[in-house]
Amino acid sequence: MRLLEERIKKDGVVKGKDVLKVDSFLNHQIDPMLTDAMGREFYRLFRDEKVDKILTIEASGIAVAVMTARYFGKPLVFAKKSRTSNLSDGVWTAKAFSFTHGVENTVMVSKQYLSEGERVLLIDDFLANGCALRALRDIVLQAGGIPVGAGVVIEKAFQPGGDGLRKEGLRVESLARISSMSEENGVEFC
Amino acid sequence: MRLLEERIKKDGVVKGKDVLKVDSFLNHQIDPMLTDAMGREFYRLFRDEKVDKILTIEASGIAVAVMTARYFGKPLVFAKKSRTSNLSDGVWTAKAFSFTHGVENTVMVSKQYLSEGERVLLIDDFLANGCALRALRDIVLQAGGIPVGAGVVIEKAFQPGGDGLRKEGLRVESLARISSMSEENGVEFC
Repeated sequence: MRLLEERIKKDGVVKGKDVLKVDSFLNHQIDPMLTDAMGREFYRLFRDEKVDKILTIEASGIAVAVMTARYFGKPLVFAKKSRTSNLSDGVWTAKAFSFTHGVENTVMVSKQYLSEGERVLLIDDFLANGCALRALRDIVLQAGGIPVGAGVVIEKAFQPGGDGLRKEGLRVESLARISSMSEENGVEFC
Repeated sequence: MRLLEERIKKDGVVKGKDVLKVDSFLNHQIDPMLTDAMGREFYRLFRDEKVDKILTIEASGIAVAVMTARYFGKPLVFAKKSRTSNLSDGVWTAKAFSFTHGVENTVMVSKQYLSEGERVLLIDDFLANGCALRALRDIVLQAGGIPVGAGVVIEKAFQPGGDGLRKEGLRVESLARISSMSEENGVEFC
Protein backbone atom coordinates (compact mmCIF):
# COMPACT_ATOMS: atom_id res chain seq x y z
CA MET A 1 0.00 0.00 0.00
CA ARG A 2 1.87 2.97 -1.38
CA LEU A 3 0.33 5.57 0.98
CA LEU A 4 1.53 3.59 4.00
CA GLU A 5 5.00 2.91 2.58
CA GLU A 6 5.46 6.61 1.88
CA ARG A 7 4.37 7.46 5.41
CA ILE A 8 6.81 4.94 6.91
CA LYS A 9 9.62 6.39 4.77
CA LYS A 10 8.69 9.92 5.86
CA ASP A 11 7.89 9.48 9.56
CA GLY A 12 9.19 6.07 10.66
CA VAL A 13 12.35 6.05 12.78
CA VAL A 14 14.65 3.01 12.82
CA LYS A 15 16.36 2.29 16.14
CA GLY A 16 19.12 -0.31 16.12
CA LYS A 17 18.55 -3.37 13.94
CA ASP A 18 14.95 -4.27 14.53
CA VAL A 19 12.94 -1.47 16.13
CA LEU A 20 10.82 0.69 13.84
CA LYS A 21 9.14 3.55 15.67
CA VAL A 22 5.91 4.60 14.01
CA ASP A 23 4.57 6.34 17.10
CA SER A 24 3.68 9.45 15.14
CA PHE A 25 0.89 7.86 13.08
CA LEU A 26 0.22 4.26 14.23
CA ASN A 27 1.23 3.32 17.79
CA HIS A 28 0.73 6.35 20.00
CA GLN A 29 -0.48 9.19 17.81
CA ILE A 30 -2.86 7.85 15.16
CA ASP A 31 -3.71 9.33 11.79
CA PRO A 32 -7.43 8.50 11.46
CA MET A 33 -7.52 9.09 7.70
CA LEU A 34 -4.65 6.69 7.04
CA THR A 35 -6.27 4.24 9.47
CA ASP A 36 -9.53 4.49 7.55
CA ALA A 37 -7.70 3.80 4.28
CA MET A 38 -6.03 0.74 5.81
CA GLY A 39 -9.41 -0.58 6.97
CA ARG A 40 -10.78 -0.12 3.45
CA GLU A 41 -7.79 -1.97 1.99
CA PHE A 42 -8.24 -4.92 4.37
CA TYR A 43 -11.88 -5.03 3.32
CA ARG A 44 -10.85 -5.09 -0.36
CA LEU A 45 -8.35 -7.90 0.29
CA PHE A 46 -10.65 -10.11 2.39
CA ARG A 47 -14.14 -9.20 1.17
CA ASP A 48 -14.63 -12.62 -0.48
CA GLU A 49 -13.80 -14.57 2.68
CA LYS A 50 -17.32 -14.30 4.17
CA VAL A 51 -15.93 -12.75 7.36
CA ASP A 52 -18.21 -12.97 10.41
CA LYS A 53 -15.96 -11.26 12.94
CA ILE A 54 -12.72 -9.29 13.29
CA LEU A 55 -10.29 -10.23 16.07
CA THR A 56 -7.36 -8.11 17.23
CA ILE A 57 -5.32 -7.59 20.39
CA GLU A 58 -5.13 -4.53 22.62
CA ALA A 59 -4.02 -1.82 22.40
CA SER A 60 -2.53 -0.51 19.17
CA GLY A 61 -4.37 -2.98 16.92
CA ILE A 62 -7.76 -1.61 17.96
CA ALA A 63 -7.85 1.52 15.78
CA VAL A 64 -7.20 -0.19 12.45
CA ALA A 65 -9.35 -3.17 13.46
CA VAL A 66 -12.41 -1.05 14.24
CA MET A 67 -12.06 0.75 10.90
CA THR A 68 -11.82 -2.64 9.18
CA ALA A 69 -14.86 -3.90 11.10
CA ARG A 70 -16.79 -0.82 10.01
CA TYR A 71 -16.19 -1.64 6.32
CA PHE A 72 -17.26 -5.25 6.88
CA GLY A 73 -20.24 -4.23 9.03
CA LYS A 74 -19.25 -7.00 11.45
CA PRO A 75 -18.31 -6.96 15.15
CA LEU A 76 -14.77 -6.52 16.36
CA VAL A 77 -13.42 -8.40 19.37
CA PHE A 78 -10.20 -7.28 20.97
CA ALA A 79 -8.24 -9.83 22.98
CA LYS A 80 -7.05 -8.65 26.37
CA LYS A 81 -3.59 -9.11 27.75
CA SER A 82 -4.26 -9.48 31.46
CA ARG A 83 -7.12 -10.74 33.61
CA THR A 84 -9.36 -7.90 34.74
CA SER A 85 -12.17 -8.00 37.24
CA ASN A 86 -14.59 -7.09 34.44
CA LEU A 87 -13.88 -10.21 32.37
CA SER A 88 -16.08 -13.24 32.86
CA ASP A 89 -14.61 -16.50 34.09
CA GLY A 90 -15.16 -18.28 30.82
CA VAL A 91 -12.27 -17.20 28.62
CA TRP A 92 -10.18 -18.74 25.86
CA THR A 93 -6.49 -18.11 26.49
CA ALA A 94 -3.16 -18.45 24.72
CA LYS A 95 0.37 -17.39 25.62
CA ALA A 96 2.24 -14.81 23.55
CA PHE A 97 5.77 -13.64 24.19
CA SER A 98 6.19 -9.92 23.50
CA PHE A 99 9.69 -9.19 22.20
CA THR A 100 8.91 -5.46 22.39
CA HIS A 101 8.25 -5.58 26.11
CA GLY A 102 10.28 -8.69 27.00
CA VAL A 103 7.39 -10.39 28.78
CA GLU A 104 5.02 -13.29 28.21
CA ASN A 105 1.41 -12.20 28.07
CA THR A 106 -1.67 -14.29 28.52
CA VAL A 107 -4.00 -13.33 25.70
CA MET A 108 -7.68 -13.77 26.54
CA VAL A 109 -11.03 -13.69 24.78
CA SER A 110 -14.33 -14.27 26.52
CA LYS A 111 -16.01 -17.46 25.30
CA GLN A 112 -19.19 -15.43 24.74
CA TYR A 113 -17.69 -13.59 21.79
CA LEU A 114 -16.31 -16.38 19.61
CA SER A 115 -18.56 -19.14 18.31
CA GLU A 116 -18.11 -22.45 16.58
CA GLY A 117 -18.05 -22.13 12.81
CA GLU A 118 -17.45 -18.36 12.76
CA ARG A 119 -15.13 -17.08 10.04
CA VAL A 120 -12.67 -14.78 11.80
CA LEU A 121 -10.29 -12.25 10.26
CA LEU A 122 -7.27 -11.46 12.45
CA ILE A 123 -5.88 -7.90 12.40
CA ASP A 124 -2.69 -6.59 13.98
CA ASP A 125 -0.42 -3.61 13.56
CA PHE A 126 2.94 -5.43 13.50
CA LEU A 127 4.12 -8.87 12.45
CA ALA A 128 7.68 -9.86 13.36
CA ASN A 129 7.98 -13.19 15.18
CA GLY A 130 4.31 -13.95 14.83
CA CYS A 131 3.63 -14.65 18.51
CA ALA A 132 0.61 -12.39 18.80
CA LEU A 133 -1.06 -13.64 15.59
CA ARG A 134 -0.37 -17.26 16.57
CA ALA A 135 -2.07 -16.65 19.92
CA LEU A 136 -5.10 -15.11 18.19
CA ARG A 137 -5.28 -17.95 15.65
CA ASP A 138 -5.04 -20.55 18.42
CA ILE A 139 -7.87 -18.89 20.33
CA VAL A 140 -10.09 -18.96 17.22
CA LEU A 141 -9.29 -22.67 16.75
CA GLN A 142 -10.03 -23.43 20.41
CA ALA A 143 -13.44 -21.83 19.92
CA GLY A 144 -14.10 -24.00 16.86
CA GLY A 145 -13.89 -21.00 14.55
CA ILE A 146 -12.16 -20.63 11.18
CA PRO A 147 -9.24 -18.19 10.94
CA VAL A 148 -9.75 -17.01 7.35
CA GLY A 149 -6.64 -14.86 7.29
CA ALA A 150 -4.59 -12.15 8.93
CA GLY A 151 -4.36 -8.52 7.91
CA VAL A 152 -1.16 -6.88 9.11
CA VAL A 153 -0.20 -3.23 8.83
CA ILE A 154 3.61 -3.61 8.89
CA GLU A 155 5.41 -6.92 8.43
CA LYS A 156 9.10 -7.19 9.21
CA ALA A 157 9.64 -9.71 6.42
CA PHE A 158 13.26 -10.26 7.50
CA GLN A 159 11.90 -11.89 10.69
CA PRO A 160 10.36 -15.37 10.58
CA GLY A 161 6.77 -14.75 11.70
CA GLY A 162 5.05 -14.05 8.40
CA ASP A 163 6.60 -16.85 6.37
CA GLY A 164 6.12 -19.29 9.24
CA LEU A 165 2.41 -18.51 9.46
CA ARG A 166 2.03 -18.77 5.66
CA LYS A 167 3.73 -22.19 5.71
CA GLU A 168 1.26 -23.22 8.39
CA GLY A 169 -1.53 -22.40 5.94
CA LEU A 170 -2.71 -19.00 7.18
CA ARG A 171 -3.36 -16.37 4.53
CA VAL A 172 -1.35 -13.32 5.65
CA GLU A 173 -1.73 -9.97 3.85
CA SER A 174 0.56 -7.16 4.94
CA LEU A 175 0.07 -3.56 3.80
CA ALA A 176 3.81 -2.88 4.03
CA ARG A 177 6.51 -5.57 4.01
CA ILE A 178 9.94 -4.45 5.15
CA SER A 179 12.81 -6.43 3.62
CA SER A 180 15.56 -4.68 5.57
CA MET A 181 16.13 -1.66 7.75
CA SER A 182 18.98 0.16 9.46
CA GLU A 183 19.62 3.49 11.14
CA GLU A 184 21.95 4.45 8.26
CA ASN A 185 19.83 3.45 5.27
CA GLY A 186 16.31 3.57 6.66
CA VAL A 187 13.65 1.15 5.49
CA GLU A 188 13.53 -0.97 2.32
CA PHE A 189 10.31 -2.67 1.21
CA CYS A 190 9.87 -6.07 -0.47
CA MET B 1 -28.13 9.36 22.69
CA ARG B 2 -31.16 7.13 22.32
CA LEU B 3 -29.44 4.42 20.23
CA LEU B 4 -26.86 3.94 22.97
CA GLU B 5 -29.37 4.01 25.83
CA GLU B 6 -31.44 1.36 24.08
CA ARG B 7 -28.35 -0.79 23.59
CA ILE B 8 -27.38 -0.47 27.25
CA LYS B 9 -30.92 -1.47 28.27
CA LYS B 10 -30.82 -4.45 25.91
CA ASP B 11 -27.27 -5.76 26.36
CA GLY B 12 -25.79 -4.15 29.48
CA VAL B 13 -25.50 -6.36 32.57
CA VAL B 14 -25.47 -4.83 36.06
CA LYS B 15 -23.28 -6.61 38.61
CA GLY B 16 -23.64 -5.55 42.23
CA LYS B 17 -24.10 -1.83 42.88
CA ASP B 18 -21.66 -0.18 40.55
CA VAL B 19 -20.40 -2.49 37.80
CA LEU B 20 -22.06 -2.22 34.40
CA LYS B 21 -20.79 -4.80 31.94
CA VAL B 22 -21.03 -3.61 28.36
CA ASP B 23 -18.50 -6.11 27.07
CA SER B 24 -20.79 -7.19 24.24
CA PHE B 25 -20.63 -3.89 22.31
CA LEU B 26 -18.13 -1.48 23.93
CA ASN B 27 -15.36 -2.97 26.09
CA HIS B 28 -14.39 -6.31 24.60
CA GLN B 29 -16.62 -6.95 21.61
CA ILE B 30 -17.22 -3.69 19.75
CA ASP B 31 -20.10 -2.76 17.48
CA PRO B 32 -18.39 -0.65 14.80
CA MET B 33 -21.61 0.92 13.53
CA LEU B 34 -22.63 2.11 17.00
CA THR B 35 -19.05 3.30 17.54
CA ASP B 36 -19.20 5.26 14.29
CA ALA B 37 -22.48 6.86 15.38
CA MET B 38 -20.92 7.85 18.71
CA GLY B 39 -17.96 9.44 16.92
CA ARG B 40 -20.37 11.43 14.72
CA GLU B 41 -22.29 12.56 17.81
CA PHE B 42 -19.11 13.77 19.57
CA TYR B 43 -18.27 15.68 16.39
CA ARG B 44 -21.73 17.30 16.41
CA LEU B 45 -21.36 18.27 20.08
CA PHE B 46 -17.82 19.69 19.87
CA ARG B 47 -17.53 20.83 16.24
CA ASP B 48 -17.46 24.53 17.25
CA GLU B 49 -14.59 24.07 19.70
CA LYS B 50 -11.84 24.32 17.04
CA VAL B 51 -10.43 20.96 18.11
CA ASP B 52 -6.80 20.30 17.08
CA LYS B 53 -6.37 16.87 18.60
CA ILE B 54 -8.24 14.02 20.30
CA LEU B 55 -6.77 12.43 23.43
CA THR B 56 -7.90 9.15 24.97
CA ILE B 57 -6.43 6.38 27.11
CA GLU B 58 -5.75 2.78 26.16
CA ALA B 59 -7.40 0.42 25.59
CA SER B 60 -11.17 0.56 25.36
CA GLY B 61 -11.30 4.31 24.63
CA ILE B 62 -9.39 3.89 21.38
CA ALA B 63 -12.22 2.64 19.15
CA VAL B 64 -14.64 5.49 19.80
CA ALA B 65 -11.79 8.01 19.86
CA VAL B 66 -10.49 7.03 16.42
CA MET B 67 -14.01 7.27 14.98
CA THR B 68 -14.34 10.73 16.56
CA ALA B 69 -10.93 11.75 15.19
CA ARG B 70 -12.01 10.60 11.73
CA TYR B 71 -15.02 12.97 11.80
CA PHE B 72 -12.82 15.86 12.95
CA GLY B 73 -10.04 14.97 10.49
CA LYS B 74 -7.56 15.51 13.32
CA PRO B 75 -4.99 13.19 14.93
CA LEU B 76 -5.76 10.97 17.88
CA VAL B 77 -3.26 10.37 20.67
CA PHE B 78 -3.83 7.54 23.08
CA ALA B 79 -2.18 7.78 26.50
CA LYS B 80 -0.37 4.66 27.64
CA LYS B 81 -0.66 3.07 31.03
CA SER B 82 2.82 1.67 31.53
CA ARG B 83 6.30 2.51 30.34
CA THR B 84 7.26 0.52 27.25
CA SER B 85 10.62 0.24 25.57
CA ASN B 86 9.12 1.85 22.48
CA LEU B 87 8.19 5.10 24.24
CA SER B 88 10.65 7.99 24.15
CA ASP B 89 12.13 9.32 27.37
CA GLY B 90 10.33 12.63 27.12
CA VAL B 91 6.83 11.92 28.41
CA TRP B 92 4.17 13.83 30.29
CA THR B 93 2.77 11.73 33.12
CA ALA B 94 -0.09 11.76 35.61
CA LYS B 95 -1.34 9.22 38.15
CA ALA B 96 -4.79 7.67 37.83
CA PHE B 97 -6.29 5.19 40.25
CA SER B 98 -8.33 2.53 38.47
CA PHE B 99 -11.25 1.43 40.64
CA THR B 100 -12.04 -1.28 38.08
CA HIS B 101 -8.66 -2.92 38.48
CA GLY B 102 -7.78 -1.69 41.98
CA VAL B 103 -4.40 -0.29 40.93
CA GLU B 104 -2.78 3.08 40.41
CA ASN B 105 -1.61 3.57 36.84
CA THR B 106 0.89 6.03 35.53
CA VAL B 107 -0.67 7.57 32.44
CA MET B 108 1.84 8.76 29.87
CA VAL B 109 1.90 10.79 26.67
CA SER B 110 5.04 11.49 24.69
CA LYS B 111 5.92 15.20 24.70
CA GLN B 112 6.21 15.01 20.92
CA TYR B 113 2.48 14.62 20.48
CA LEU B 114 1.03 17.44 22.58
CA SER B 115 1.96 21.04 21.88
CA GLU B 116 1.49 24.38 23.60
CA GLY B 117 -1.72 26.09 22.60
CA GLU B 118 -3.36 23.00 21.09
CA ARG B 119 -7.09 22.62 21.68
CA VAL B 120 -7.57 19.05 22.88
CA LEU B 121 -10.81 17.05 23.13
CA LEU B 122 -10.68 14.23 25.70
CA ILE B 123 -12.60 11.03 24.93
CA ASP B 124 -13.22 8.07 27.22
CA ASP B 125 -15.64 5.18 27.41
CA PHE B 126 -16.60 5.45 31.11
CA LEU B 127 -16.80 8.27 33.64
CA ALA B 128 -17.34 7.29 37.29
CA ASN B 129 -14.84 8.81 39.71
CA GLY B 130 -13.18 10.89 37.03
CA CYS B 131 -9.61 9.72 37.70
CA ALA B 132 -8.77 8.88 34.10
CA LEU B 133 -10.20 12.11 32.66
CA ARG B 134 -8.46 14.16 35.36
CA ALA B 135 -5.16 12.53 34.43
CA LEU B 136 -5.72 13.30 30.73
CA ARG B 137 -6.71 16.90 31.48
CA ASP B 138 -3.66 17.37 33.71
CA ILE B 139 -1.38 16.06 30.96
CA VAL B 140 -2.88 18.54 28.46
CA LEU B 141 -2.35 21.36 30.95
CA GLN B 142 1.26 20.29 31.61
CA ALA B 143 1.87 20.50 27.86
CA GLY B 144 0.41 24.03 27.77
CA GLY B 145 -2.61 22.86 25.79
CA ILE B 146 -6.27 23.73 26.24
CA PRO B 147 -8.67 20.95 27.28
CA VAL B 148 -11.78 22.09 25.40
CA GLY B 149 -13.99 19.37 26.79
CA ALA B 150 -14.53 15.70 27.44
CA GLY B 151 -16.73 13.32 25.45
CA VAL B 152 -17.80 10.32 27.49
CA VAL B 153 -19.75 7.30 26.28
CA ILE B 154 -21.30 6.24 29.61
CA GLU B 155 -21.37 8.42 32.73
CA LYS B 156 -22.32 6.93 36.06
CA ALA B 157 -23.97 10.15 37.18
CA PHE B 158 -24.52 8.74 40.68
CA GLN B 159 -20.76 8.80 41.18
CA PRO B 160 -18.94 12.09 41.73
CA GLY B 161 -16.57 12.28 38.73
CA GLY B 162 -18.73 14.08 36.17
CA ASP B 163 -20.12 16.78 38.44
CA GLY B 164 -16.70 17.32 40.00
CA LEU B 165 -15.09 17.91 36.61
CA ARG B 166 -17.94 20.21 35.54
CA LYS B 167 -17.49 22.26 38.75
CA GLU B 168 -13.81 22.51 37.90
CA GLY B 169 -14.81 24.14 34.62
CA LEU B 170 -14.46 21.27 32.16
CA ARG B 171 -17.23 20.86 29.62
CA VAL B 172 -18.31 17.20 29.93
CA GLU B 173 -20.75 15.68 27.42
CA SER B 174 -21.91 12.13 28.08
CA LEU B 175 -23.86 10.12 25.51
CA ALA B 176 -25.63 8.15 28.26
CA ARG B 177 -25.95 9.31 31.87
CA ILE B 178 -26.98 6.64 34.35
CA SER B 179 -28.86 7.97 37.38
CA SER B 180 -29.12 4.63 39.17
CA MET B 181 -28.67 0.95 38.55
CA SER B 182 -29.20 -2.36 40.31
CA GLU B 183 -29.27 -6.06 39.47
CA GLU B 184 -33.04 -6.11 40.18
CA ASN B 185 -34.16 -3.03 38.29
CA GLY B 186 -31.46 -2.60 35.66
CA VAL B 187 -30.35 0.82 34.49
CA GLU B 188 -32.13 4.18 34.79
CA PHE B 189 -30.99 7.21 32.79
CA CYS B 190 -30.96 10.88 33.83
